[in-house]
Amino acid sequence: MDNKFSSAIHALILISESEEPLTSEKIAGSVGTNASYIRKIIGLLKKNGITESRRGVSGFVLKPKPEDLTLLQIYQAVNKTEHPCLFDLHKNSNDKCIVGYHIKPVLNGMFAELEDAFARALAEKTLADCIRGIRKRLEAET
Amino acid sequence: MDNKFSSAIHALILISESEEPLTSEKIAGSVGTNASYIRKIIGLLKKNGITESRRGVSGFVLKPKPEDLTLLQIYQAVNKTEHPCLFDLHKNSNDKCIVGYHIKPVLNGMFAELEDAFARALAEKTLADCIRGIRKRLEAET
Repeated sequence: MDNKFSSAIHALILISESEEPLTSEKIAGSVGTNASYIRKIIGLLKKNGITESRRGVSGFVLKPKPEDLTLLQIYQAVNKTEHPCLFDLHKNSNDKCIVGYHIKPVLNGMFAELEDAFARALAEKTLADCIRGIRKRLEAET
Repeated sequence: MDNKFSSAIHALILISESEEPLTSEKIAGSVGTNASYIRKIIGLLKKNGITESRRGVSGFVLKPKPEDLTLLQIYQAVNKTEHPCLFDLHKNSNDKCIVGYHIKPVLNGMFAELEDAFARALAEKTLADCIRGIRKRLEAET
């Protein structure tokens, strides 16, 4: 597990809330990491149509509206996978044993169902929800 | 990610379906691993009241009924945690930036909600469901 997902959400909130395209250096300053790590993440987001660069301007902008960008899309982009992978199935079960022979397809099916449920929960949340959460805390402060 | 969870389910199906207490050596033979790895897993299951040993008999037996044993209980036991941890939050966000300052509690809350949804999905499945899946495949074969 790494923190690419949470760093990507942080970067996208900054990009979305900024009035000007943001550079990787500025984003890295807020996320608390280095610019090359941010460029790596933004590269993955760009590949998935989440951010874009504007010709002649340095920095990145958000392509979809925050309310249309789900956490699932961000998760898929930074993890380079369509389907979240939350389980590791043991590979060497003994095919000569009835349980050992049949367990792989049974657990694969069951794990896929659980991963689908997780993906649906991720798809129900958007970048706009994260931004709203931060705004609420700001309002409560004042 | 390791395969303790899927190995534990495999071991528990064997223990549940066996008419006699099963030793770690026999379980390891079907799971395709070594007996000490199985003993480590069974130790975690025993600590959580999932398996037990019978006095004077070598081997392990299942304590709850398979229909009462949820995949969440198995997951919690082998991962030594009450709450599934699926996300890693970046720790060094800059407190001097508004987003950097407020993102931690916002993402912590959001990630906890997603982990809860995953836990609920795990709690809806039982060891009996896994056993049923294997029996169905066996019936389809004959």
